[in-house]
Amino acid sequence: MDAFGGDYAPLEVIKGAVAAAKELSDEIILVGKEDEIRSVLQSENVPEGLVSIRHAEEVIGTDEHPVAAIRAKKNSSLMVALKMVKDKEADAVVSAGNTGAYLAGAFRVLGRIKGVKRPALTAVMPTITDKISVILDVGANADCKPFQLVQFAHMGAIYAENVLGIKNPRVALLNIGAEEAKGNALTKETYALLKETKLNFIGNVEPRNVLLGEADVIVSDGFTGNVVIKSIEGTAGALFKMLKEVFYKNLGTKLAAGVLKPGLKTVKNKLDYSEYGGVPLLGVDGVVFKSHGTADAKTIKNAILVANDYYKAGITEKIKELVATEQDDSAEETEMA
Amino acid sequence: MDAFGGDYAPLEVIKGAVAAAKELSDEIILVGKEDEIRSVLQSENVPEGLVSIRHAEEVIGTDEHPVAAIRAKKNSSLMVALKMVKDKEADAVVSAGNTGAYLAGAFRVLGRIKGVKRPALTAVMPTITDKISVILDVGANADCKPFQLVQFAHMGAIYAENVLGIKNPRVALLNIGAEEAKGNALTKETYALLKETKLNFIGNVEPRNVLLGEADVIVSDGFTGNVVIKSIEGTAGALFKMLKEVFYKNLGTKLAAGVLKPGLKTVKNKLDYSEYGGVPLLGVDGVVFKSHGTADAKTIKNAILVANDYYKAGITEKIKELVATEQDDSAEETEMA
Repeated sequence: MDAFGGDYAPLEVIKGAVAAAKELSDEIILVGKEDEIRSVLQSENVPEGLVSIRHAEEVIGTDEHPVAAIRAKKNSSLMVALKMVKDKEADAVVSAGNTGAYLAGAFRVLGRIKGVKRPALTAVMPTITDKISVILDVGANADCKPFQLVQFAHMGAIYAENVLGIKNPRVALLNIGAEEAKGNALTKETYALLKETKLNFIGNVEPRNVLLGEADVIVSDGFTGNVVIKSIEGTAGALFKMLKEVFYKNLGTKLAAGVLKPGLKTVKNKLDYSEYGGVPLLGVDGVVFKSHGTADAKTIKNAILVANDYYKAGITEKIKELVATEQDDSAEETEMA
Repeated sequence: MDAFGGDYAPLEVIKGAVAAAKELSDEIILVGKEDEIRSVLQSENVPEGLVSIRHAEEVIGTDEHPVAAIRAKKNSSLMVALKMVKDKEADAVVSAGNTGAYLAGAFRVLGRIKGVKRPALTAVMPTITDKISVILDVGANADCKPFQLVQFAHMGAIYAENVLGIKNPRVALLNIGAEEAKGNALTKETYALLKETKLNFIGNVEPRNVLLGEADVIVSDGFTGNVVIKSIEGTAGALFKMLKEVFYKNLGTKLAAGVLKPGLKTVKNKLDYSEYGGVPLLGVDGVVFKSHGTADAKTIKNAILVANDYYKAGITEKIKELVATEQDDSAEETEMA
């Protein structure tokens, strides 16, 4: 656990890691400035030996230039934590820090799984149904090629099946129309390729239906995927802001809002994807989870738990098997075309 | 007015046109099957002479293939209405019908303003402030080049200034990060070009901030713009669906919801962009307004009123002046580059 990544690091991160350690039998290693970590553990009355510490002197800030930061700060909590996975001193890494630096660092330190063209940042989306959906890529690759999206689809399906327990997940392409002929050059070509795979491809899903739970895995280039999750987040935020004004208008509305509070809280939590803790960078050679920059202790705890599930489900190995077999042919062919 | 376009045509369309005719001194011509229009006017007790009728035998359905439909149905209400603008028998056209057919028909019948590379469908977005924002393109061009986005910016600024009355409108580029270096190849190149214009360019706006009113004009390729407005629409819809469940849970919540109803209604209306009636296709040589497929009478009325404002503000002429002067140089240079 990168103890110094995220807006509320190190306090909330350490508290979250401690909460996770209480639920798991596995060792949790906090990476960062040892004396600061020790002082937090002490003030929180954490029993000796519940978590381990690995010292790392430097910290990469949220606003630092990703590539410059990972070059300059080899002893940062983020880079040291990644290195530990590379050196098999840790099985998974979680950070709520600088996304760009984390992605760039993961590429550099761990590298891609052989055969994977581009790793993809993978978000878990709430829906109005009981199910959740997986959407990828949501920001690791702003410009994508069709065969990369096909790989994202495969990796997303493996994730949905093995971590979320969804049998034969329904895979859809994010597009601006339901029909096959709709979209831009990228989505049209990707549609044609997805039809040829063995995936349970159900066609296009429109942005307005993302929250309806029509698909288990939603595939997109990183630019569009990021636009969708940020639009949803922004709209929910703006709406709750406006609702708050309605609720606080006068005594009558305040009392009424009080009655509705438990239900409203449930709705808010459901749309808050940080509730799901963290999301994996699928396709790198190691278990790399990203938690939200604004993660609090609860979010960090959830991120560690889900990273643990992911590691135990052997997703990295499953992706390796996949690219070693059926995927290779079609991807290579497309690349040459 | 294309009387046979939209899910609730012809009844709601005719009622909307009649409502607009009562507010305007200008002539409103309903285009479509004359006998059906007459029978609606009669059953609605519309005074003789309040609206005119132009007969058109055919109707283009929502699900018809755009290009095939406009080729096959030259006598459709949609094509006849467009032709009337071309022939100066009408000053503006409004339709709630098949978007693709309408766009394709407008290109074919009216053509582009000379110098405009691509016309752009332009939406008006509500914000949590008192202001509204203009966003374009939201679906006419799925694949765009940087210089096209620069033209969209210019056309959007003319619209915001002359129709919405926003002086020196703040123009922003829709992007997945606030910093200049963020985004995909298209946004990075567009950012560099926008900096060189005389527009009041304020940089990137992130999808999560679209509803905050940070910019007056938001520029995007048609794919991403469509994704954003549909994501916002979908999220608001899903949220209100979930809220409804909270409100109808039991007698207590129903009573509480009753107290909050007026305020909630205001919020819902604010986020419902169909409240703004219709949006122009900027860059075609004529005034072409698109209303939502689900438009009811009120929406149609608003669409006609805003199309009328737009016509009277002489936007088409202003765009012609613009492309004739400063715009030409930079656009041509970029195209050759």
